[in-house]
Amino acid sequence: MLEKLKEQVCNANLTLFREGLVTHASGNASAVDRKRGALVIKPSGIPYDIMRPEHMVVVSLSCGAVTDGDQTPCEDTPAHIAIYRAFRKIGGIAHTRSLFASAWAQAGQNIPTFGTIHADRWHGEIPCTRFMTDREIAQDYEWNIGQVIVESFRGIDPLHRPTMLVAGHGPFTWGANVDAAVQNAVFLEFAAKLASETVRINPHAKPLQATLAEKRFQRSHDPRTRRNHDGWDIPNEDSQVSQMGEL
Amino acid sequence: MLEKLKEQVCNANLTLFREGLVTHASGNASAVDRKRGALVIKPSGIPYDIMRPEHMVVVSLSCGAVTDGDQTPCEDTPAHIAIYRAFRKIGGIAHTRSLFASAWAQAGQNIPTFGTIHADRWHGEIPCTRFMTDREIAQDYEWNIGQVIVESFRGIDPLHRPTMLVAGHGPFTWGANVDAAVQNAVFLEFAAKLASETVRINPHAKPLQATLAEKRFQRSHDPRTRRNHDGWDIPNEDSQVSQMGEL
Amino acid sequence: MLEKLKEQVCNANLTLFREGLVTHASGNASAVDRKRGALVIKPSGIPYDIMRPEHMVVVSLSCGAVTDGDQTPCEDTPAHIAIYRAFRKIGGIAHTRSLFASAWAQAGQNIPTFGTIHADRWHGEIPCTRFMTDREIAQDYEWNIGQVIVESFRGIDPLHRPTMLVAGHGPFTWGANVDAAVQNAVFLEFAAKLASETVRINPHAKPLQATLAEKRFQRSHDPRTRRNHDGWDIPNEDSQVSQMGEL
Amino acid sequence: MLEKLKEQVCNANLTLFREGLVTHASGNASAVDRKRGALVIKPSGIPYDIMRPEHMVVVSLSCGAVTDGDQTPCEDTPAHIAIYRAFRKIGGIAHTRSLFASAWAQAGQNIPTFGTIHADRWHGEIPCTRFMTDREIAQDYEWNIGQVIVESFRGIDPLHRPTMLVAGHGPFTWGANVDAAVQNAVFLEFAAKLASETVRINPHAKPLQATLAEKRFQRSHDPRTRRNHDGWDIPNEDSQVSQMGEL
Repeated sequence: MLEKLKEQVCNANLTLFREGLVTHASGNASAVDRKRGALVIKPSGIPYDIMRPEHMVVVSLSCGAVTDGDQTPCEDTPAHIAIYRAFRKIGGIAHTRSLFASAWAQAGQNIPTFGTIHADRWHGEIPCTRFMTDREIAQDYEWNIGQVIVESFRGIDPLHRPTMLVAGHGPFTWGANVDAAVQNAVFLEFAAKLASETVRINPHAKPLQATLAEKRFQRSHDPRTRRNHDGWDIPNEDSQVSQMGEL
Repeated sequence: MLEKLKEQVCNANLTLFREGLVTHASGNASAVDRKRGALVIKPSGIPYDIMRPEHMVVVSLSCGAVTDGDQTPCEDTPAHIAIYRAFRKIGGIAHTRSLFASAWAQAGQNIPTFGTIHADRWHGEIPCTRFMTDREIAQDYEWNIGQVIVESFRGIDPLHRPTMLVAGHGPFTWGANVDAAVQNAVFLEFAAKLASETVRINPHAKPLQATLAEKRFQRSHDPRTRRNHDGWDIPNEDSQVSQMGEL
Repeated sequence: MLEKLKEQVCNANLTLFREGLVTHASGNASAVDRKRGALVIKPSGIPYDIMRPEHMVVVSLSCGAVTDGDQTPCEDTPAHIAIYRAFRKIGGIAHTRSLFASAWAQAGQNIPTFGTIHADRWHGEIPCTRFMTDREIAQDYEWNIGQVIVESFRGIDPLHRPTMLVAGHGPFTWGANVDAAVQNAVFLEFAAKLASETVRINPHAKPLQATLAEKRFQRSHDPRTRRNHDGWDIPNEDSQVSQMGEL
Repeated sequence: MLEKLKEQVCNANLTLFREGLVTHASGNASAVDRKRGALVIKPSGIPYDIMRPEHMVVVSLSCGAVTDGDQTPCEDTPAHIAIYRAFRKIGGIAHTRSLFASAWAQAGQNIPTFGTIHADRWHGEIPCTRFMTDREIAQDYEWNIGQVIVESFRGIDPLHRPTMLVAGHGPFTWGANVDAAVQNAVFLEFAAKLASETVRINPHAKPLQATLAEKRFQRSHDPRTRRNHDGWDIPNEDSQVSQMGEL
């Protein structure tokens, strides 16, 4: 069952590996089939160099039981379930250990909106969770990772900020499907690296102007705000030259 | 029309990608044909791995209208037009999101002339624009990116400092043609990286001696200042040895 | 003699090179055969590009004499012997000059447990030795490198913290066999790099919650603590939705 | 004439390029033939991808005149001549713009002896010149680069510290022949990178113990100090175990 989704999820996991966002057997990606109430997720302990679609595991979204596949689902499966249940619009999730995103997660800090690269893809800062309590760690730890991710998103469209850094752990990204989740993981690593390099040059670097961050995000996400190229309001060349003088 | 320029512009865009200065569909390069009053620019939304010369778009320099090509010109086209109109000597422009140059842009800081590598290619600091006003952002944003770039260059030869960092955004480079613009983008990234590594070793690093910066720039840019190797004024070896003693 | 172990040790040394953890002829890996009281170690002065199993040298664990092989054992052999004698459970050792682990060694600092990646593999901080005394340096230096490594491990299971940074020098890793030792060297470099990037974002970054560090380590090392996926205690979906509301 | 040396110098220049220590046409390597009183050096303006031995230029050590070759010798030729004249033992010189070594040069700082990797190859800190005076810049600039390098080496064996960072410019390395000069350039970049990463972890990192730095340098450079492996003074295993207890 769900052969097509297994192939997509397998490819997504292999892309995380090829892009250098995971090492050895770490990291995982999944996709959900809302109608069937099931997710397809990476197995535990299968190295990337032999991973194939038939290794993917189908898990019930309602109870966490394996409904198809010979392998054990990866340990982060309960976190994926918690996120899918809370964010009804999303179709895929990726969890990586990419260097710079993990460094911000270990630093326990949100990534500020320092530039347009960030603003084009995330509405506001890329958030980092609080540190989990001893109780959350002792009981149902993997489920609680998902819960602490969801906790911070109340009232925000998850597709408008498709990322959460889990403090002391690493990033989770998501999207309308598993490909988008993986693409967001790739962009996240670049945005995190760029933010790191920015604060090293200027520890007091200010976030992007709020109006610009808003404009960039809307331009990227709302087709209606994109202006047709015929609609550019470009001044007449002659008037401009006389105004500026020859350079 | 302009088939040769389309090929050059396509190659220039692909070089930006191969050199790792842009990711996914970001970044763009263009060339201008002054006689025809037209620029050839990268289209919007064509991935680098399928990009071909026939995708390039011809745009009128005087009004911004597409005069040839099936694709939509990239969103930064108005900025390119503004720069071409103001800087009459230049033949090509490149806009990248390269990591270190973008970090200096996000930090909102000029790159100081820390060494000869910088001084050989740029006359003075590599400047960063001011942050744009809410009004500039709200109306004709892409055109105003070009305007804020031009604003800082009054009275300076654009070919002597072929770069502007747009605060919170990223670098634009230019040159006598589109190949030179791309080469400047490559050098810029190295100079930006080197400047970052320098301030991390010594946050109080001083800029190069003004006389040396001037000499290096002139030596690179004015063929007349290059001394013929027969003209080296090298002391006679025997006199020198007696002076220095054996080491 | 020990042909199989020679092949493993040769492969381990070549893996260190391929992973970029050593340069030129630096670095070395060895394995021990406890029954025979001998270790197989990299020779001195053989470049990686021509290294073959027959170059490996067999050395007596009890007296340091070469018992098989035409080559001279590498200079760090006495340190390997000291470690094998003290840590009876280990089967292999790797010594690299990998960039970030060596930087922590040169900084003379333990690598704090900043995240789960670290905690999954090391029980507590990754320790750095004290600086050696002039006397230790003057006499039996290579043997004393091993001694100073062993000194810090009294009372701790060496397989639970399979690494020591030698102050001003570089890292030694070990494991149940030489492959595990090399794998630990690879993970160490990633953990060291991640720790470096973390303190640059937040110089006051706090170590992982102690309870979480403990849980992660136990989950990775004690098969009994791994919960069967059927044992996940995931709340019923319907009850949860009503509780959280639609997002 | 000097066909063999031309081939060596060409290969050396190409190695600098392959190792990523130079960009575009920057950097240069040369070798000297003391008997003939001539050096063989890289030409000016020949890109690395078409460079061949016949492009190399032969220059008189005593007067700087070209005595063989169709090309113009590179602009740094006078600096090479000054160094060869002062350091009679050396046979080759390399000048690169490698990132981290250039960053220390731009920072105007010596690279401290933070670890054994450094101490194995350099006797003491890797020095950086003073900044040149306006007069030195105005007249015979390229010759004076060589002079300021030589100035700091009075009384020291150049082969014991085969490197000088020219402040605001970049590194020069040398060796018994041009291959050794290039190898030193490769090691220098690693040592510079490692020093940068060290001070970022611990800005107050202390240099290596003087006794250890001395021992490592002597062990690498004086064959008589290398101890035969049969000469290791390794304690008897049984006595040691009883002393340490089982770990």
